[in-house]
Amino acid sequence: MRAAYYEQLDRVNDDLVEMTRLVGSAMNRATQALLDADLPLAEAVIDFDAKVDTLASDVEERCYELVALQQPVATDLRVIIGALRIASSLERMGDLAEHVAKQARMRFPKVAVPQELRATFAEMGALAEAIVSKTGSVIATKDVALCADIAQHDEQMDRLHRELFTIVLSPSWKYGVEEAIDVTLLSRFYERYADHAVSVSRRVVTIVTGEPYVAVSLEDQAGR
Amino acid sequence: MRAAYYEQLDRVNDDLVEMTRLVGSAMNRATQALLDADLPLAEAVIDFDAKVDTLASDVEERCYELVALQQPVATDLRVIIGALRIASSLERMGDLAEHVAKQARMRFPKVAVPQELRATFAEMGALAEAIVSKTGSVIATKDVALCADIAQHDEQMDRLHRELFTIVLSPSWKYGVEEAIDVTLLSRFYERYADHAVSVSRRVVTIVTGEPYVAVSLEDQAGR
Repeated sequence: MRAAYYEQLDRVNDDLVEMTRLVGSAMNRATQALLDADLPLAEAVIDFDAKVDTLASDVEERCYELVALQQPVATDLRVIIGALRIASSLERMGDLAEHVAKQARMRFPKVAVPQELRATFAEMGALAEAIVSKTGSVIATKDVALCADIAQHDEQMDRLHRELFTIVLSPSWKYGVEEAIDVTLLSRFYERYADHAVSVSRRVVTIVTGEPYVAVSLEDQAGR
Repeated sequence: MRAAYYEQLDRVNDDLVEMTRLVGSAMNRATQALLDADLPLAEAVIDFDAKVDTLASDVEERCYELVALQQPVATDLRVIIGALRIASSLERMGDLAEHVAKQARMRFPKVAVPQELRATFAEMGALAEAIVSKTGSVIATKDVALCADIAQHDEQMDRLHRELFTIVLSPSWKYGVEEAIDVTLLSRFYERYADHAVSVSRRVVTIVTGEPYVAVSLEDQAGR
């Protein structure tokens, strides 16, 4: 009975790792759709989000079942509640990838990102990919040492987000208001995506160490 | 023993209602600081957020204690997990009020909102107030009928958010890129604030009815 319980708990953990893979792939393809103004790819990312949502609900339901059937002790319960919160952060990361894809679709056949900012968004996409893949490793291996890398990627993301404001607001910005709003919102989607990944990795630390969770407010450092 | 348990659970619920009051007051004052370019008021809202964060952590810790000490049955556990999630949405609403106040501070002594959009933001502030106060009532009374009102306020918020894009992107927009970005981000803070309130009210429905939670994706309807 107890063995079956831990087996189910492991399955929940595997599904959380799978969710990082899904939302990583979603953001990766969303970035590509954005930079290439690739409409079918953007549509695919938008449709794909239902898969993430379904897995999140599935994990949530199985967590409730685990609790109902097994009356876990306090430590196990911290794990289950942690899993619920991780699932909801990952679901939100999927939404943010979808937002990026929707922005690509809205501007099609135009590219939503001006030439000067392509490199910035390509870098944001690469950072998002690195951060989510390490987040998956933290969940899978409980190697909390990786959290330092994740925090560093997140700082780099915040730096890019701040730089983007400088570019958009400089007198040499030769595009209009619409382009400025587009890139500001897009940049915020990447920055929030990274914040959620940091939040997930901190939840894992909480579970592993039993220390209280420290809320993510790194985005505030970016000034907006 | 059991009576003490329910007493503590009631106290958690009271604290969630108190949190709605705090984040309602924060957004209300943030809106005022924004429209009046009132720096001391903006600073007060920013400092005030620590109070919300403390109450959220406090609720969280007490939920864990309740579970650890009392080994609640499945139904109670749904209530406790629901309370944890409600606390984290409310904490996030506090952050969004703080973001509005920071925007007011950043532009001081200028008013961050152009004259033409004052009425829009005043209305957004009033909607935020109505929505959070009804959310508090839903938590306090479990009267899920109020959720229809909350959904309606949220739709109205989405409509204002969409209209704002139309105004900012119209050829008659006589302000610059900075003002456009400011009001777009501000508008998004209000719209997310309302989304979180909807999410809280749906969590209460889940607790009361036992039906699965429906994720909030209303913001998507706003197109950004």
